[in-house]
Amino acid sequence: MKATATAPGKTILVGEHFVVYGEAAIVMAINRRVQVTVEGRQNRSLYISSDLGFSGTFVEDKYTAETGYVGGEKVLKPIKISAQTVLNAFEKKIGLNISVHSSIPMAVGLGSSGALAVATVAAVGKFLGRELSADKIVSLSTEAEKVVHINPSGIDQAISTYGGVIVYKKEEGITRLKTASAIPLVIGNTGIQRNTGILVDNVRMKRSRFPEIMNLMNSAAKHLSRQFIVALKSDALNSLGELMDINQGLLMAIGVSHEALDRLVYAARASGAVGAKLTGAGGGGCMIALTPLDQRERVSEAIRRVGGTPIIAKKADKGVHCWIHE
Amino acid sequence: MKATATAPGKTILVGEHFVVYGEAAIVMAINRRVQVTVEGRQNRSLYISSDLGFSGTFVEDKYTAETGYVGGEKVLKPIKISAQTVLNAFEKKIGLNISVHSSIPMAVGLGSSGALAVATVAAVGKFLGRELSADKIVSLSTEAEKVVHINPSGIDQAISTYGGVIVYKKEEGITRLKTASAIPLVIGNTGIQRNTGILVDNVRMKRSRFPEIMNLMNSAAKHLSRQFIVALKSDALNSLGELMDINQGLLMAIGVSHEALDRLVYAARASGAVGAKLTGAGGGGCMIALTPLDQRERVSEAIRRVGGTPIIAKKADKGVHCWIHE
Repeated sequence: MKATATAPGKTILVGEHFVVYGEAAIVMAINRRVQVTVEGRQNRSLYISSDLGFSGTFVEDKYTAETGYVGGEKVLKPIKISAQTVLNAFEKKIGLNISVHSSIPMAVGLGSSGALAVATVAAVGKFLGRELSADKIVSLSTEAEKVVHINPSGIDQAISTYGGVIVYKKEEGITRLKTASAIPLVIGNTGIQRNTGILVDNVRMKRSRFPEIMNLMNSAAKHLSRQFIVALKSDALNSLGELMDINQGLLMAIGVSHEALDRLVYAARASGAVGAKLTGAGGGGCMIALTPLDQRERVSEAIRRVGGTPIIAKKADKGVHCWIHE
Repeated sequence: MKATATAPGKTILVGEHFVVYGEAAIVMAINRRVQVTVEGRQNRSLYISSDLGFSGTFVEDKYTAETGYVGGEKVLKPIKISAQTVLNAFEKKIGLNISVHSSIPMAVGLGSSGALAVATVAAVGKFLGRELSADKIVSLSTEAEKVVHINPSGIDQAISTYGGVIVYKKEEGITRLKTASAIPLVIGNTGIQRNTGILVDNVRMKRSRFPEIMNLMNSAAKHLSRQFIVALKSDALNSLGELMDINQGLLMAIGVSHEALDRLVYAARASGAVGAKLTGAGGGGCMIALTPLDQRERVSEAIRRVGGTPIIAKKADKGVHCWIHE
């Protein structure tokens, strides 16, 4: 008997960075998913195979690589921790074979870690015969994430669990947003590594040097998120695009854009996108271009031409789901 | 006997576009100048020769081209109007030979029109034996400009007359700013034509669609100009650069940047500039990069490599001046 769960990745539509200072980030699940399959195992170790380039076995905290030696432990450990968190929650002392397939590029701000944690938690729960509520999946996967990252917001776990669109504010937490908008995107991956912590710190330092200016841009971002929600509810594609363009300017102003991101942004806008901006931490990683369906190929080609890797994506209304098979 | 006057061009350091809504623009005279030489003529026509690609004669409003036929009248007429304005002011009915040399690229936001008007007014005044005060030169050249453009702010005429740095606000007019800062720049010309009127209109329309967001960005620009003045007074090069970078983000947010401008901006920043932004109307035209003296060649080369034409420039403390010779 096996249990499988799939969970979607995510993209931040607007509000990244400003969310650190209390404004709303609007986050959407995308139709790129991870799939985690769990089955029983003879001994009490956790064996993880993946298409992430690594496989290996954890016996307690000791990792033994099977394929893809260097860096494997770092990539697979969060999966192990997610599985272990569920086993601990139900006081099960068993081993598992965990197999992972992902169509979400890693470490570019598309929520692959959150989706992996959520799918792993759901699959292990299902395998144990427990019907985990969505809230329980969020809390268990966020708990697991805490071992890896200090202070996760839980936003990635929530969007991978619920799907659709959510609004997140530091003080108010998560609100699910009903929208009929399809939000057709072309995501452009610059392929450039960035360090989220350094980018967040740089914004904080800029803020200490120029508090009034940065506060006013924060307020502009607050209103921008509000207008974005209004436009989402009425499926006003052009307004959504224009607000994304404004947001990109604000993100450039606070210093988190990057030459490669803006190159992709301009290429997308010039090829039929109604708006484009970086998504996530910035400084590299990905941008998103809101793109009418009939322009997606053109925008993809334009992104490719200026050195990016395009990913066609849209809203995934379905969050995590799981089933038993074989 | 001849009279010659020279006047500097200008660049907007920060505040363009936001100035339309009442915030401060900070404008600097640059060491690129026009030179206008005036001498007597047998008849009452105005003969203008120039290194702008045109020469010809005005008899009243009738233009007869001598060289560079198409477009010559449009280029030379403002010079004729400036000269005529001074002749009229002193009720002189004489002809003049006017010879113009310019090292300011035209129609890219570097104030060539203003400098031409100012130098022409000063040279004609000097030729007539009148000691025109600076204020008189500003008012006569602005009066002349009114024939060509509706509602000139007078800012270009003021900076070409006074030199140095001035702060301009719609409600308060012009304030001269004392600063010891050298403000070493590399200006990058994209070579892309833009239409200032359309750009200003686009901002106005964006403002009507998203009033709160645009108002808050205006307020951010207001504080930015204030901080810029503080940094100018203390010659804080890094702060000036950082504020220029923030300003560029705001200008992108209101929709007046351009792919070519940002390409030059990023190239300059990556090659030693401490800050860079578009200058003037945007949508093409020029960008400026605040660049320590020992980095100017590198930044110039970087701008050239990505398709721009670099112009090394710095603050011109000397405004218009004129002399009699031969």
